[in-house]
Amino acid sequence: MRVAKVIGTTVSTIKSPRIAGTKLLILQATDETGEKELGKPFVAIDVVDAGVGDLVLTCHGSAARQTHITKDTPVDAVVMAVIDHLEVDGNVVFRKA
Amino acid sequence: MRVAKVIGTTVSTIKSPRIAGTKLLILQATDETGEKELGKPFVAIDVVDAGVGDLVLTCHGSAARQTHITKDTPVDAVVMAVIDHLEVDGNVVFRKA
Amino acid sequence: MRVAKVIGTTVSTIKSPRIAGTKLLILQATDETGEKELGKPFVAIDVVDAGVGDLVLTCHGSAARQTHITKDTPVDAVVMAVIDHLEVDGNVVFRKA
Amino acid sequence: MRVAKVIGTTVSTIKSPRIAGTKLLILQATDETGEKELGKPFVAIDVVDAGVGDLVLTCHGSAARQTHITKDTPVDAVVMAVIDHLEVDGNVVFRKA
Amino acid sequence: MRVAKVIGTTVSTIKSPRIAGTKLLILQATDETGEKELGKPFVAIDVVDAGVGDLVLTCHGSAARQTHITKDTPVDAVVMAVIDHLEVDGNVVFRKA
Repeated sequence: MRVAKVIGTTVSTIKSPRIAGTKLLILQATDETGEKELGKPFVAIDVVDAGVGDLVLTCHGSAARQTHITKDTPVDAVVMAVIDHLEVDGNVVFRKA
Repeated sequence: MRVAKVIGTTVSTIKSPRIAGTKLLILQATDETGEKELGKPFVAIDVVDAGVGDLVLTCHGSAARQTHITKDTPVDAVVMAVIDHLEVDGNVVFRKA
Repeated sequence: MRVAKVIGTTVSTIKSPRIAGTKLLILQATDETGEKELGKPFVAIDVVDAGVGDLVLTCHGSAARQTHITKDTPVDAVVMAVIDHLEVDGNVVFRKA
Repeated sequence: MRVAKVIGTTVSTIKSPRIAGTKLLILQATDETGEKELGKPFVAIDVVDAGVGDLVLTCHGSAARQTHITKDTPVDAVVMAVIDHLEVDGNVVFRKA
Repeated sequence: MRVAKVIGTTVSTIKSPRIAGTKLLILQATDETGEKELGKPFVAIDVVDAGVGDLVLTCHGSAARQTHITKDTPVDAVVMAVIDHLEVDGNVVFRKA
């Protein structure tokens, strides 16, 4: 899984019918503190009602289809948790506002 | 999923019989605004009748076989949505012409 | 699999119900000696009761669901072994304290 | 899928019995014109009788097992088409000799 | 698949019970000649009794579970062939000693 920040949304009228009604978020992966951006932005289905600005966990690949919302759909990434806090080497480095 | 721009097409006479009749697009991934190119071009099956110049969403891996067109085929990427607009930090950064 | 060091933990109240009760570790991949950091940190489910500071093996992708704890869950990485020692070119380069 | 050039072959006597009789090609991914090399060389099973010098399409991951030759085998990449031509922005940038 | 050199071994007492008895090798991917190191070292299960110094083929992802030894195990990489020789552009660039 990756630590990522929700930075936006994307809307599509023309799409595979299997993803009708899903919420598509734009995400930016971060380091283990939630502060430094890492790698390229990507798009994931939201199954935990996350919002822009939230720090979340995303899972990728076939794992992304292991939820009721994404079963048998053409999606390769899902937001599966909203992060409350991150602790590194015994110190809390991120705490949800 | 990735945000990507359709930049071309590829044609093959000699191919796995399971992909006969499919449309193969060449894509270039972009950042979350659809403007900056990111990473290497790749090829994906089109299931939403996208055209050159369209900004689309692509999904990768086993997820690419989760459509009627690509079921049980040797394909690892599919164009599964045409993007209408992208919104980042509350601003619309891309809107389909 | 990757050699990685456990560097922290993450806690989420809002999450996919299928991962309720699992322990989520933050990891940093290392080289074959366990010393040099490689690539970006990531998050994995722990199935071997590893602790912060341990050097472990992680597996990724659908393989991460091949344990009793992670079966049918939206997870793409799992800590599946704690490393006792690493031997490179005939020399022991890491030994668990 | 990736655009790649066949650059060589590899032979193994000691191998998983499930890949006995398959042809293993060495490939170098290229850009969308087939000219510029991109990324690292890799090895794939050939199912379309491609030859050294051919520009081909390769698919990766579980998709590589979706052919009669590669079903249930430990292979993660397959050459699934020989490219006749590539068209980018309305121009033919590669045509098979 | 990747061309890789076996550079070491790793031993774990605490591990997922499904991988008990398997041999875990540390590998370094190389270019198509077996000489130049590429990318990061990784760990794979050995199913062909390879040894340190051997040049081998590894496969990754769900393909790694397509052997009798790795079926239903949490492993994402397997050594599935020992390379006898590599031929690039008509020249033998590697031959097993």
